[in-house]
Amino acid sequence: MLKAAVSVEFGKTEVQEFNFPDIPPDAGLLKVEKSGICGSDWSYYKKYPESKGPLILGHEAVGYIDRLGKDAARRFGFKEGDRVALEEYLPCGNCKFCRSADFRLCEKTDTLNLEGTIRYGSTPITIAPSLWGGYSQYQYLHPNAVLHKVPEHVTDKLATLALPLGNGIEWAYLQGGISIGETVVIQGPGQQGLACVIAAKEAGAGCIILSGLSTPADKRRLALAKKFGADHTLEADKVDIVEAVREITNGEMADLVIDCASGGPETIVSAIHLSRIAGRIVFGGRKFRPIPDFESDLLITRFLTVKGMRGHSFKSVEMAIAIIASGKYPLDGMCTHVFKLDEVDQALHTVGGEGLPDAIHCAVDPWN
Amino acid sequence: MLKAAVSVEFGKTEVQEFNFPDIPPDAGLLKVEKSGICGSDWSYYKKYPESKGPLILGHEAVGYIDRLGKDAARRFGFKEGDRVALEEYLPCGNCKFCRSADFRLCEKTDTLNLEGTIRYGSTPITIAPSLWGGYSQYQYLHPNAVLHKVPEHVTDKLATLALPLGNGIEWAYLQGGISIGETVVIQGPGQQGLACVIAAKEAGAGCIILSGLSTPADKRRLALAKKFGADHTLEADKVDIVEAVREITNGEMADLVIDCASGGPETIVSAIHLSRIAGRIVFGGRKFRPIPDFESDLLITRFLTVKGMRGHSFKSVEMAIAIIASGKYPLDGMCTHVFKLDEVDQALHTVGGEGLPDAIHCAVDPWN
Amino acid sequence: MLKAAVSVEFGKTEVQEFNFPDIPPDAGLLKVEKSGICGSDWSYYKKYPESKGPLILGHEAVGYIDRLGKDAARRFGFKEGDRVALEEYLPCGNCKFCRSADFRLCEKTDTLNLEGTIRYGSTPITIAPSLWGGYSQYQYLHPNAVLHKVPEHVTDKLATLALPLGNGIEWAYLQGGISIGETVVIQGPGQQGLACVIAAKEAGAGCIILSGLSTPADKRRLALAKKFGADHTLEADKVDIVEAVREITNGEMADLVIDCASGGPETIVSAIHLSRIAGRIVFGGRKFRPIPDFESDLLITRFLTVKGMRGHSFKSVEMAIAIIASGKYPLDGMCTHVFKLDEVDQALHTVGGEGLPDAIHCAVDPWN
Amino acid sequence: MLKAAVSVEFGKTEVQEFNFPDIPPDAGLLKVEKSGICGSDWSYYKKYPESKGPLILGHEAVGYIDRLGKDAARRFGFKEGDRVALEEYLPCGNCKFCRSADFRLCEKTDTLNLEGTIRYGSTPITIAPSLWGGYSQYQYLHPNAVLHKVPEHVTDKLATLALPLGNGIEWAYLQGGISIGETVVIQGPGQQGLACVIAAKEAGAGCIILSGLSTPADKRRLALAKKFGADHTLEADKVDIVEAVREITNGEMADLVIDCASGGPETIVSAIHLSRIAGRIVFGGRKFRPIPDFESDLLITRFLTVKGMRGHSFKSVEMAIAIIASGKYPLDGMCTHVFKLDEVDQALHTVGGEGLPDAIHCAVDPWN
Repeated sequence: MLKAAVSVEFGKTEVQEFNFPDIPPDAGLLKVEKSGICGSDWSYYKKYPESKGPLILGHEAVGYIDRLGKDAARRFGFKEGDRVALEEYLPCGNCKFCRSADFRLCEKTDTLNLEGTIRYGSTPITIAPSLWGGYSQYQYLHPNAVLHKVPEHVTDKLATLALPLGNGIEWAYLQGGISIGETVVIQGPGQQGLACVIAAKEAGAGCIILSGLSTPADKRRLALAKKFGADHTLEADKVDIVEAVREITNGEMADLVIDCASGGPETIVSAIHLSRIAGRIVFGGRKFRPIPDFESDLLITRFLTVKGMRGHSFKSVEMAIAIIASGKYPLDGMCTHVFKLDEVDQALHTVGGEGLPDAIHCAVDPWN
Repeated sequence: MLKAAVSVEFGKTEVQEFNFPDIPPDAGLLKVEKSGICGSDWSYYKKYPESKGPLILGHEAVGYIDRLGKDAARRFGFKEGDRVALEEYLPCGNCKFCRSADFRLCEKTDTLNLEGTIRYGSTPITIAPSLWGGYSQYQYLHPNAVLHKVPEHVTDKLATLALPLGNGIEWAYLQGGISIGETVVIQGPGQQGLACVIAAKEAGAGCIILSGLSTPADKRRLALAKKFGADHTLEADKVDIVEAVREITNGEMADLVIDCASGGPETIVSAIHLSRIAGRIVFGGRKFRPIPDFESDLLITRFLTVKGMRGHSFKSVEMAIAIIASGKYPLDGMCTHVFKLDEVDQALHTVGGEGLPDAIHCAVDPWN
Repeated sequence: MLKAAVSVEFGKTEVQEFNFPDIPPDAGLLKVEKSGICGSDWSYYKKYPESKGPLILGHEAVGYIDRLGKDAARRFGFKEGDRVALEEYLPCGNCKFCRSADFRLCEKTDTLNLEGTIRYGSTPITIAPSLWGGYSQYQYLHPNAVLHKVPEHVTDKLATLALPLGNGIEWAYLQGGISIGETVVIQGPGQQGLACVIAAKEAGAGCIILSGLSTPADKRRLALAKKFGADHTLEADKVDIVEAVREITNGEMADLVIDCASGGPETIVSAIHLSRIAGRIVFGGRKFRPIPDFESDLLITRFLTVKGMRGHSFKSVEMAIAIIASGKYPLDGMCTHVFKLDEVDQALHTVGGEGLPDAIHCAVDPWN
Repeated sequence: MLKAAVSVEFGKTEVQEFNFPDIPPDAGLLKVEKSGICGSDWSYYKKYPESKGPLILGHEAVGYIDRLGKDAARRFGFKEGDRVALEEYLPCGNCKFCRSADFRLCEKTDTLNLEGTIRYGSTPITIAPSLWGGYSQYQYLHPNAVLHKVPEHVTDKLATLALPLGNGIEWAYLQGGISIGETVVIQGPGQQGLACVIAAKEAGAGCIILSGLSTPADKRRLALAKKFGADHTLEADKVDIVEAVREITNGEMADLVIDCASGGPETIVSAIHLSRIAGRIVFGGRKFRPIPDFESDLLITRFLTVKGMRGHSFKSVEMAIAIIASGKYPLDGMCTHVFKLDEVDQALHTVGGEGLPDAIHCAVDPWN
């Protein structure tokens, strides 16, 4: 028997026991070391137990391959005993997105209708073999799972940063195109914003500016950003950030603006004013409400490019793991909390901003 | 003495006589054959005589180089007697935009503060030597003017399409990236929308859809679009264009959506719903008002890229002239009206939708 | 029992009977309509029977899915009865190339050591279940097979052009970057060269020049190229093609040069001189011998980009099928011969230039 | 009167006096602080005095704008007293290359026929006003000169690195596309190779390998490269560099290979074997002789992209100056020698490898 944390309703997660599943020839089983907690877990927690039924949350698992079916080593390109990080996606493998680098857009695991698809961390236990989430001692390796090699010298806690740091690289670099000497403004100092700081630093950005609030939590995050290489940090509730950026850049403004803030529509508006003429903007933080009086004409008069963005590509996760493994950044400061399997409710509330203070990236250790 | 149409106030344009100007060593004089009328002339007409003083409008001139100062042939790369089309921009030549392909974004001829800069068709006659506009027998060739060679076999009327067709190529192709086999939806069947149809056809688009209204004027434009290669035309006030495109494309939706409509905010909203997941959207039609309740989250959940766009590059205008010269498209159907110099008021009202019916692209013949 | 043409040695192909194979859960069986003959089949024919043992050649098969294992419909994204074209590659599915658009470069089916890998049309019958080639009534659908949907209205003969036309699109367009108005010179009027003509035409090339020899066979190919949209054809043994292109282009030379010739090193040398400064060159035709006195400095002084190129991507094959299905090009002229299963030796000699005259693209019909 | 070093024949440079020139309205005069010595100066020195007549060599000048004609401030975007670095190019300003970012390819200053064009450092004194070279107290600012702002805090010696470091950024980054985590092998540890090391480091390369010889001079250069961030240095005459790179990269080989070596054809051959499948190769070092038995088929079978490359773009020089100004790299180690005006012969022999030992980047101080 193995243990997993099953969220049965919002606010109520139980440690349950499961039998080890049968493993089909092209599938496998992961022994989870730790599983990171994504910001989206908070919204999944609030809606999926009710809409889909009880489920094991968590989709940032790192661990060792415990068992493989007879055809699975060839299928995955890994063997039993290998250490891997798992993506949340289960791409179909044959559509135009899966035949390019964009398998995260796979039409058959439609991101707009998550309810109808199978993905790690958002699939109920009623779908066999139940072990779809990372807050568990073992996780099922579906034949379509996307795995990345994790070097032995990387601690499991840091390894859970593979996906969020992959997002930062995807947003700031692969999609945002930050290049040597450029100025980037990142709004929102959560794990995504901090990951973007690291990506921009790696890419040789000339000036990295991160904005947050003047709360104690954000102050700590902004201080950490400085250790990662941010040149300036701004408290958006204390200063006019558009004017502050104008001053910092001698009126040049930002080549790239990334909105990782999760609050109201203000940062959508400021993003457009923070950009230089012909600049690029990446929207990464959902607002869950419309923007009143959005001036689309500003995109035209200022020649702006805006990209909506979620998630990571295979390449960005590979790059993230290499950066983590390089030891160049004090990433321990980003991994603030590790929770036990029977603390998953507290863990999720913490990530949702309603639990322990000062969280940036949290993880669950299913063996503790 | 030479004649030019000077707009002294909105609704009042007079044919005035000017002396031939002195030509500095690095400047020249263009003998205008015809000058096209841009949609923006209507808004310039309404505001610039009042805000800047009397001016000669028009910035789509085609003609022959009449005179060149002693250093100007080397400067322009043309000699007296050459036939050229003129861009509206007067780029500084030394900023980062002018040292790349983006001189139209030149910071010293700031497009956001047109009032303070010198550009063809929007500079008052009080600035010497007055001849800044195309609705004139002669136009001053400023040392920074951007000229394009026009083949002799192209009629002057068709040659005035160089800039609007350049816009279509810039928006649909160079920036919009339309490629072989793709589906493009273009909203707004004016000269910009029609130019985008041609650009998409040239680029090998697999399915070109143009939407307009069910007015007689738009019906004629939509019919012309079919001759240019549009596969489908839609009357947006008669059908639900999102559903119509869904049906045409078997649910695939558009790879690229271009908004060339000048009306209300509806086409901004529909653009986002017309695009496939991970599609591209070009905003080219200004709304002069904010968009209420803009759902920025849709950009994120649908992974969209949105580009605001105005104007053309050197390359797009060169490509446009080559397409015009090829004779592949029945462009005569697009050149609906030619006005005399003393008919400029009527010409501008026609382009503004308040004059003669059925206008698409109009021109002024200063010799008639 | 089913019939297949087994090449047992160079020059000796026998029609043999095979039992219908067992189909694993994630595999299937294709009922072959026709299978195209690739130029590379000639070299495979000469070496593989000896180096690998008897094999069924052919890797351009088109047909209907006859049977699928219970998991295979989900795996392939197709169901029994669907009509498909098959790529030759059997990518591993998990390496960095397979996680991008470049699965044809899959490291585990190393193109440099074809002997050691499984691929359609080059795998011996000793590897179960033997049916790896297209010159057969049925072909095994390996779980990693890459399939494309083929519309019912396309004849099977034309459908066998999916891969060679895919190559043309890949080389001229996706990799060569031919764009609207550009000049392209294509050397070698075989099926690859002709496919590049079509790709360039689709992409809006302004001037398409194809060179061949003055042989009767090449004369016919050059004439066909004109029907596909080539603007000029040149007989390289009769004229100095560098000078001819200089004249045609008024000294501008070619934006893109594609070498599809299979002969000696002359076309490598001429390619460099045919290109304009800062032009692009695609090498697609292997010479099987070194180039004497190659002037690498010319790449530097002329700022050239040279790409070596083989094969197609998923996207290029999809685009090819759409072009075939559009009926825009008289492709029947390209499909010159169809051979019976007991005529495979003659078919291969014909493609190798030692059989029937006037071949461009040939196919095998295994039911005849 | 002003002093300049005039190379009257190979091996004979004289300090001559010149009158201050008349300055046309759109031109100016630069007071040279120092002028760097490019590797190409050695070949210019050997051929131009004979082929063109006496000339002032040097095209890496840094200095202050001493005088401007009345229209020149607007033309250059600088005013008297500004500190600038000068590019060698004098682009026409109106061709397709000058209207894009590629003015260094300007057709009217054809790089293939340098003899016929005006460029800094290669134009004889017989062409008025003689002051075309950097080894002079003053240099003429032609109306088409390309200038870059140099911050005051940068020493003049370091500022002369603007162009060679610009080359490194152009070759390794803007054209070579080195990106985060990639492996780059650079052949040739001269100033270009070292500049490529810095560019790769800025771009976040994961593994930078530089090869040279085991000579004392190269050993010192390789040691300096380590300070700039090279991960590995190889002595190509002591080890098999292809095997060494195979070992370092665990068989992955290089994503990008840059050949900056000026010796024989060996590095052209090794470049192709150092690249991974689908890798990129930049040829920057001319060989002045053909490559025997070049295997063009390797480009095809290995899917390689090869770019010939010379010089820099406006953007790369701007980026270079920003990197120099950042103080991030110990660039003093690269600036090995400063020569007086009457030591130009010794300076040129030193750069040519026949003068003082241990030179990397040298400069001339015309005031000493």
